[in-house]
Parts: sequence; C-alpha cells; structure tokens
Amino acid sequence: MIMQRHQVVVGGGFAGLNATKALAGADVDVTLVDRTNHHLFQPLLYQVATGILPDGLIAPALRSVIKDQANARALLAEVIDIDLDGRVVSALGPDGKPLRLPYDTLVVATGATHAYFGHDEWAEFAPGMKTLDDARHIRSQILSAFEMAELATNPDDRAAYLTFVVVGAGPTGVELVGQVAELAHIVLPRDYRLIDTHEAIILLVEAAPAVLGPFAPSLQRYTEQQLEKMGVQVLCNTAAVAMDEETITIKGPRGEDRIPARTKIWAAGVRASPMAKLLADATGADLDRAGRVSVRPDCTLPGHPEVFAIGDMAALNKLPGVAQPAIQEGQYVGKLIRARLTGGAERIGPFRYRNKGSMATIGRSKAVADSFGVRVTGLPAYLMWGFIHVLYLIGWGNRLGTLYAWLRSLTFSANRGYRVITQQNAQRELTRSAETANADVPAHQAADPAR
Amino acid sequence: MIMQRHQVVVGGGFAGLNATKALAGADVDVTLVDRTNHHLFQPLLYQVATGILPDGLIAPALRSVIKDQANARALLAEVIDIDLDGRVVSALGPDGKPLRLPYDTLVVATGATHAYFGHDEWAEFAPGMKTLDDARHIRSQILSAFEMAELATNPDDRAAYLTFVVVGAGPTGVELVGQVAELAHIVLPRDYRLIDTHEAIILLVEAAPAVLGPFAPSLQRYTEQQLEKMGVQVLCNTAAVAMDEETITIKGPRGEDRIPARTKIWAAGVRASPMAKLLADATGADLDRAGRVSVRPDCTLPGHPEVFAIGDMAALNKLPGVAQPAIQEGQYVGKLIRARLTGGAERIGPFRYRNKGSMATIGRSKAVADSFGVRVTGLPAYLMWGFIHVLYLIGWGNRLGTLYAWLRSLTFSANRGYRVITQQNAQRELTRSAETANADVPAHQAADPAR
Repeated sequence: MIMQRHQVVVGGGFAGLNATKALAGADVDVTLVDRTNHHLFQPLLYQVATGILPDGLIAPALRSVIKDQANARALLAEVIDIDLDGRVVSALGPDGKPLRLPYDTLVVATGATHAYFGHDEWAEFAPGMKTLDDARHIRSQILSAFEMAELATNPDDRAAYLTFVVVGAGPTGVELVGQVAELAHIVLPRDYRLIDTHEAIILLVEAAPAVLGPFAPSLQRYTEQQLEKMGVQVLCNTAAVAMDEETITIKGPRGEDRIPARTKIWAAGVRASPMAKLLADATGADLDRAGRVSVRPDCTLPGHPEVFAIGDMAALNKLPGVAQPAIQEGQYVGKLIRARLTGGAERIGPFRYRNKGSMATIGRSKAVADSFGVRVTGLPAYLMWGFIHVLYLIGWGNRLGTLYAWLRSLTFSANRGYRVITQQNAQRELTRSAETANADVPAHQAADPAR
Repeated sequence: MIMQRHQVVVGGGFAGLNATKALAGADVDVTLVDRTNHHLFQPLLYQVATGILPDGLIAPALRSVIKDQANARALLAEVIDIDLDGRVVSALGPDGKPLRLPYDTLVVATGATHAYFGHDEWAEFAPGMKTLDDARHIRSQILSAFEMAELATNPDDRAAYLTFVVVGAGPTGVELVGQVAELAHIVLPRDYRLIDTHEAIILLVEAAPAVLGPFAPSLQRYTEQQLEKMGVQVLCNTAAVAMDEETITIKGPRGEDRIPARTKIWAAGVRASPMAKLLADATGADLDRAGRVSVRPDCTLPGHPEVFAIGDMAALNKLPGVAQPAIQEGQYVGKLIRARLTGGAERIGPFRYRNKGSMATIGRSKAVADSFGVRVTGLPAYLMWGFIHVLYLIGWGNRLGTLYAWLRSLTFSANRGYRVITQQNAQRELTRSAETANADVPAHQAADPAR
C-alpha cells in the first residue's frame, strides 16, 4: 500500500477524463490539465465541420464535467515538460506564466494530431480535423468554396471551386465526404442562383484497396456503393502525391492525375502528440511509426510504474486510435491507481480491451456497424449509431440538443443550422487569396475589417 | 413609371434584409451583398458572448433566408467603393478578386461599429461587440479571466482577474453585465476549487446620470436596483478616462479611481460604417456626430433619388440605432421602390416610424419593457421580451433551438451550454501575455500549438 496523494492527469480527452472520473471518491487529489477548457467529443466533430452541430454540444467545459467530483480540479494550461525523476510536470497557464505540478502518480493522455507523412507543407492546402478550431476552419473552407464558385467568372475556376477532395477513407473521411455530398446535393441547391451545386465533383481518395480499413469486406462494399449513390467518387488504391492551392495530384491504378480542386481535406493519418516522444526518450520505451510510445501491459512506462500513458498517444496491443480503447484504458488506470491505494493491485491483471465493435455513418439513414460479429447496414445501423453516440455525449442538455439538431438537419428542408463562415477564417482566405490573385485593388483594402 | 431592373442592397442586417424581402415578387433583380455569409440577430449577440446560445441560431445563412425569393440573390463580398455617377458598386469577393455591380437603384445599409470616442487604442483592452467573432472573443476573455484567477498565485493578481468592467449602460451593456453577474454568482461557483467566483467585482460604468438612457425613470431605477441585487455595482455619472492591459481608470462624482481589472468590455458608443462618409462626401449630405449620413424624409440621398441609406448608418428624425427603425426603414424602402415600378410612388409619403417600444433583460425573470406608455418590469417583462425576440428570429428551427437553449440555461443547474474558449483567442491571449509576463520559459514554447 503506497501513499499516492497527488495525481496529475494530462489531457481531458476520452482517456484522461475517464481516468479522472474513475478516481472519484478515492483518497487522492486529482489535477486534470488540458490546454483547452473543454472535453471534445471527437466522433461528432465532422458534424461541426459540416454545419449540423454547434460546437458547445460536443465540447462541455471540463471543469463543469467534473464539478461534482470533490477530489478533482481542472486546470487550463499547456504542458511543456515532464521531469520523470523529479516527478514534476511543467506547464504554462493562459497568462503565459510557468506552473509546476508535482505528482505522485501521472497519467499522460495528450492524444494525437493529424500527420502528413513527411509532407507538412500540405497542411496549408489540406487542413486536418482534430480540434474545434480545425472544424470551424474546414466548415468555412467548404462553404466559402461554394460562394467563390457562385462568383467565378470562368468555367475552369468554377469547376475548381466545386471540386472537393477528402484524402483518407477511415470513418472520419467517410463521414466527412458523405456530408459534403449532402451539402452539394440536398442542402445547398436551392440557395444558389448561378451555379448548380449538383455539378460538384466530390472525391474520396484512399491508398488502401478499400474504404473503412478495419471493417468487414461486405460493409466496405456497402459503404462504397452508398457513397457512389450519393454522388461521391471513391478512388481506392490511390494516393495523394502532390498538392498546391489550386490542385491536387493523385496516383492510382490509371496513373497520375492532376485535378483542379480548391478544397482538400486531410483525413489520412495521425501522429501521436510530442509528449509520446518525450516519455520514450526519458524511459527508453519504443516509439511506433505513428509516434506512439509503447507501454507495458498495465499502461505504465518501463521503470516508471507511477507514470501511465494512455489513449491515442500510447501503443498497446495494436489497438486502434478510436474512442473505445481510450475510454477503457482510462477506466482501467483509474481502477489500478485505486487498487494501489487500498491494496490488491497485484490482483488486477494487465489491461484487456473489450471490443464493442465499430460503426460509421455514411449519410442520412445510412450507416454500417460491426459489433460482436453482427454486421448491420442501412437504417438499423444508422439508428444504432445515433443512439450510441447520443448516449456517450456528456449531459442531458447536450444529448437533447444534439437530437434536436439532428432532427433539424433531417427535416425543415434539410437545413444545416450552423453555417457561419467565421471572420477569422474568411479574413485568412481573403488575405491569402488577395496576395496571390491578380487583384487590381490594393491589398490593404482587402484586409480592412472596418469596411 | 421608371424602369429599374437592377437593385443592389449592400448589407444583410435588419435594414438590408427587410428591404430585400419587401421586394419579393416585384419585377426586379435584387442582389444582396454582405461581407459575411449570415444575417446577424444582434439583440441576442450578448447571449453568444456569455455562453447561452451557439452562433448559428442567431446567424442564419443569408442565401438560405432568401432562397425562396426567386428575384433575389445573395453575394458574399466586401463593398469597397460606390460610384454614384456611374451607378456601380465595387466589391471584393472572398477570393480577393474585384467585382463590379451596376445598379438602377441602390440601398446602402452597412450598419455601425463600436466607437471609442478618440481612444481607438482602447479597442485592444476593451473589445466591443458587433460581430459573431467579437462575441466569441468576449466569451473567451470572460471565461479565461476566471481560469487565470484560479491559477493566480497572489491575491492582487487574482482580484484583477476577478474584476469585470462593462463601459456603457445601454441595453447591450445592461444585458452583458447581468450575464457576467449570473456567471459569477449562479453558473460558475461550483466549477472552481481555489477561487470563490462570488468574490468577483462587477462594475457597470455609465457617463449619463442613469442606466438605459431612453427608458422611463421608474424603469431605470428598477434596473439599477435589480443589477445591484445581482451583485453589479452601477456607477453612473462616471466615465472611463484611461485603460491598459491590467487596469481601467474611471472618473466619477468621487474623483478618479484606477481599478485593477483585466476584463473590460466596451458597450459605450457606436460609429456608422465608413460607407456613410463616402455617401456624404459624394452627395454633400451632412454627417452627424456618430458618423451617420443624413438622409431625406424618404431615406434617399440629396440629388440621388435612386440611392437609399437606411439603418444604423443613416440619420433620420433622430431615431435610435436599434432594430425596429432599421426593419421599418427596410420595409418602407422596399414599398417605395415597388411603387415607383408600378406607379403611385407620389402617394407614398415620407418614412414614418411607428415606435413599438423598448425592452431590455437584466437577468433571469427580470426585464423592463416600455411600450405605448405601458411600463412593465419583472417576470411579465421577461416573458414579453423572450416572446418577442423568439418571434423575430428567422425560421422555426432557430426559434425552437433558442427556446431550448434558454430552458437549458434556466434549468440543468443553470449551465451555460456554449463555454468554448476558442484556440484562436486563447492563442492570442497566450502570445500577448507571454510577451509581457516575466515568464522564465522561452516564448516560442508558449506559442507552440503542437504541444
């Protein structure tokens, strides 16, 4: 029985938040540090990026989520270093001042960000989607593209603005491209006068031989068929090889093709947070190809039983970087820390993942689910998907709000309630484009927010 | 009967949108130009700034609002010049390319922005609230202040972060300060561990002798009493005379006072859009002290019966810069243009404002309303206020969504559903503070978004 008063949890995603909650009532102090003030429910982030949901419903304030847990507190700060020998986490508060957080036990769960496989310069042209700001940026990009198409004076420009390419056909890529198709074919047609949004070209590019890699082949085929029906061209065995502001070059079975496409979205790969490397360097643990730190079967780091790494930044049993392993690892670590306090830790075995299955939506009343060997498609899968996602949201206020937003997106002429192009993003577009375009108006006027 | 085929409306606020809608079915083409893609329902903007409402409910996409009006189209572009002689509007599209919009009749309704009375340098320290981005910025500032107070290591810093000053006690200032008080006293107390948010000092500073200038004295007194009960210190006859990052200096009956206050919000004054001056210069019309262009009794400009200026940028009969005059002017102009097309314009007299009264909320179940000489306070005024504001929102989806968000903010432990501190703003805070703070950590780490 070890005295472990101070628990520090870094990261308020699925892993860190569940570890924190699993320590409720234990005789410890838990400090949950995150560089944002909210827990982000990432599985629904694509719905913020496509105007279905407002941000708050999938991003409750962390301190509000744990307000009834008397032994836990939330801290808005950015962790910049961890001293494993001195057992201190260094962070910066939002006021830029340094903070020292000593710990007895540390749980690191800083997640992952999108990765461009050695092509970081693509980030500018094909944004990825990991944060609310990313989602708002992508929403502004998609909606602005239709606006620019409406203004375009020659057919080539118009076509480039009406071509949307999603790179990567995992669940995020499939769900995003499905919503872009719904925007073009269901939501927006009547809003435009000069363009026909049905003419939009929507491509889903995937390097592997099929979409939704880990799903059963029958579900992959169903998904491809449904996407094609919705007007998405699914290009498998095809990789992005180059891109710039106006085009993307893809290479597939029929060779290379340079496609004029203003809007590219990156859903092809993730890399673990830099904290994984920091922990690997400090402990000698391995890093895998995705930059994740390999942990021992109990989620601790070699030689440091007091330090856990969980969620998307940690590599264990080749588990995928989705919500369920992160949630279960968080719960496991909380349980293990409790057992250490009260005795009996040795009776808790290594972490065992209970695979509850996978699911992905494609579009309205279309989804795939693969759970305990049962494969479901169509409306039943869609309803299952909706039920489970609402269930996992935090708080009844958010659950009901999300149901209402979904109802709105399916009725009321399929409107998307959240189509704001934020000025920050618009301004970015405006400034960047003004620099590159042959505008015969001085650039300072383009960026003058007073007009 | 004049042929006036091309109507251009600049600005999609209350005035411009109502002018556009009033032309539905007329034998004209209407082009509605706005530099954002949405109509903003400004009377509820303070609720976005304080976490009650998400942005989309009060900001429907303009082209969606007019999608069923066959003779109208929306254009996302920033108007930069108007050639009254050549009858051409010059604008920049979101791609930075110039656009020319010839017109037969022009309606300019570009609104107003906040003004600092010769102290533009205050904009950095005391943001105003006119756009959704402003509201998100203010929300991030208010919520970050509580976060920084929680982290502060000495009592003076903590007090400065827990002091909130709203400058200007018109409806916007009163409504904002009331919500800051509800955050501090109702919503947030249980979320924090180290600070007691009840200790927040919340000041409402007003240069005039009373709050809510145009309201009846009995309603002014009621408002001041209710605000004081909610924990707001109301300082009338008091002006802001200086401010910086950490303090504000006010001057009132008891002399000057320099108050440590990290969060200042500006609700004290507005200035018309620069388009007003452009029109005044081109036509010889007067500009009033708020930069508004004086128009003739039929809302046209001198010598240019084909050009109308309406809403907050126009001065007519000393009407206040609120929604009702803008709406009614828009409707009037639409009617006048129709009459010119079909004959009978001479039978339409000058614009006449029908004053339907004024109202403002103070907090939950507290409001004031003054309509047709009937003065109402408390819950009845609050219900009237809610009913009328929901009624004026555009679309049933937004109306029901707003009712649901209000219900949430009044129940579910008074939670505010939309408390996201956006990274863009947090980053701004972080970077700015890191530059000024005595941080012993290199500044590039503070701004590294990868960690």
